[in-house]
Amino acid sequence: MTYCVALRLDRGIVFAADTRTNAGVDNVAQYRKLHFWRQPGDRVIVLMSAGNLAVTQSVVSNINEQLATPDNANPTLFTVPSMFRAARLVGDAVREVRRIDGAALEMSKAGFSASFILGGQIGAERPRLYQIYSEGNFIEATDDTPFLQIGEHKYGKPILDRVARPEMGLGDAAKLILLSFDSTLRSNLSVGMPIDILLYERDSLDVRRETRICQNDEYFTKLSASWSNALRTAFASIEEFKI
Amino acid sequence: MTYCVALRLDRGIVFAADTRTNAGVDNVAQYRKLHFWRQPGDRVIVLMSAGNLAVTQSVVSNINEQLATPDNANPTLFTVPSMFRAARLVGDAVREVRRIDGAALEMSKAGFSASFILGGQIGAERPRLYQIYSEGNFIEATDDTPFLQIGEHKYGKPILDRVARPEMGLGDAAKLILLSFDSTLRSNLSVGMPIDILLYERDSLDVRRETRICQNDEYFTKLSASWSNALRTAFASIEEFKI
Repeated sequence: MTYCVALRLDRGIVFAADTRTNAGVDNVAQYRKLHFWRQPGDRVIVLMSAGNLAVTQSVVSNINEQLATPDNANPTLFTVPSMFRAARLVGDAVREVRRIDGAALEMSKAGFSASFILGGQIGAERPRLYQIYSEGNFIEATDDTPFLQIGEHKYGKPILDRVARPEMGLGDAAKLILLSFDSTLRSNLSVGMPIDILLYERDSLDVRRETRICQNDEYFTKLSASWSNALRTAFASIEEFKI
Repeated sequence: MTYCVALRLDRGIVFAADTRTNAGVDNVAQYRKLHFWRQPGDRVIVLMSAGNLAVTQSVVSNINEQLATPDNANPTLFTVPSMFRAARLVGDAVREVRRIDGAALEMSKAGFSASFILGGQIGAERPRLYQIYSEGNFIEATDDTPFLQIGEHKYGKPILDRVARPEMGLGDAAKLILLSFDSTLRSNLSVGMPIDILLYERDSLDVRRETRICQNDEYFTKLSASWSNALRTAFASIEEFKI
């Protein structure tokens, strides 16, 4: 499995992805699922992936091949004029992989599975955030539901539902996302550290705040312990059920 | 879907079940999923169910028919000498329904699905708690993992993981279970109010604390609001992520 989440804020977007892949609990490995491309001053595009690793890697490779061998007839991530067009380009790359591998995968138990979170900013457009399905179509995050999740989304959703707001600062949003990861990591072994996290600041048009949070990371360890304590204190502060 | 959860404590067991059933989001109904049988002074047995309603109702009907027409050759819930034997009896009832309806269900998209939480106390035995699978086999809760869940278990699990302890009082455990329900109800429309809740006190060998919590219940409404506030306060008390 996988857990990726992104939160679209007034001041930017925060992205985070785990790095565990598995083919059964006895076959786990570590792969990066958070990718980004940038042309400082012009655009930042971030892509996170879940699902069949062969499919998602092929999608990223297709996108990179387009960038390496540009032709004037076809757009690339560096030439599309908007994030909407970037989402369509990624969707097309998914459909291209399905054209090649889909039939063989559908004949197996694994099936064709892939989903993506795409976000970023191009020029003067506001930062935008999309979820792209294995069919290549997509939805966009709005202020009503400012976050998107792919992979194991259930354990980490209650805290997002209650706390996520577009007005949050990037550091607060990153804290929230890491709490959402903490709940997920505790419950699903197929989601694993390290966590890649990227804080994109609106209008920076560059990637300045990006890091990998490893097992035993001081902030994450403290966050997890503080949150457990805070939850227990909050729990104790509420009147018990009487009947 | 369904959400049922039970927590085995040193001082008893708390059970809770939602009441929503659905065959698609456009076909919802209300059915009781928490059933109990008692012989005051001798035994209390509580059964909660998830899965195909036709299957789970048939299981309960089989158990009730045994009680209505006892014969000396076959045990009933009122004659089994232990909760372990009660779990085996329920498992046998599941297998009996599968024998009759299994083949037809397996040919449909619905399949044969049913799971149960069984708990209670018989005589001097300590209260025991089981989860029974659609195959009729079962596991027992222990102090390492004192709670069992069936149905939509993911959204409500993080809070149980962090707070559930065998030493809790029944009222505190009921509060915890209702918080677990609150997270689930917010995220999965197929889990719905009212909630049936039963607090079994060890060695009481009777059902004295059992009620239905309806939409707009004063305690539940206050609990939900207090918890949201407490979570936001707890969130604000933790240092933000810096990079």
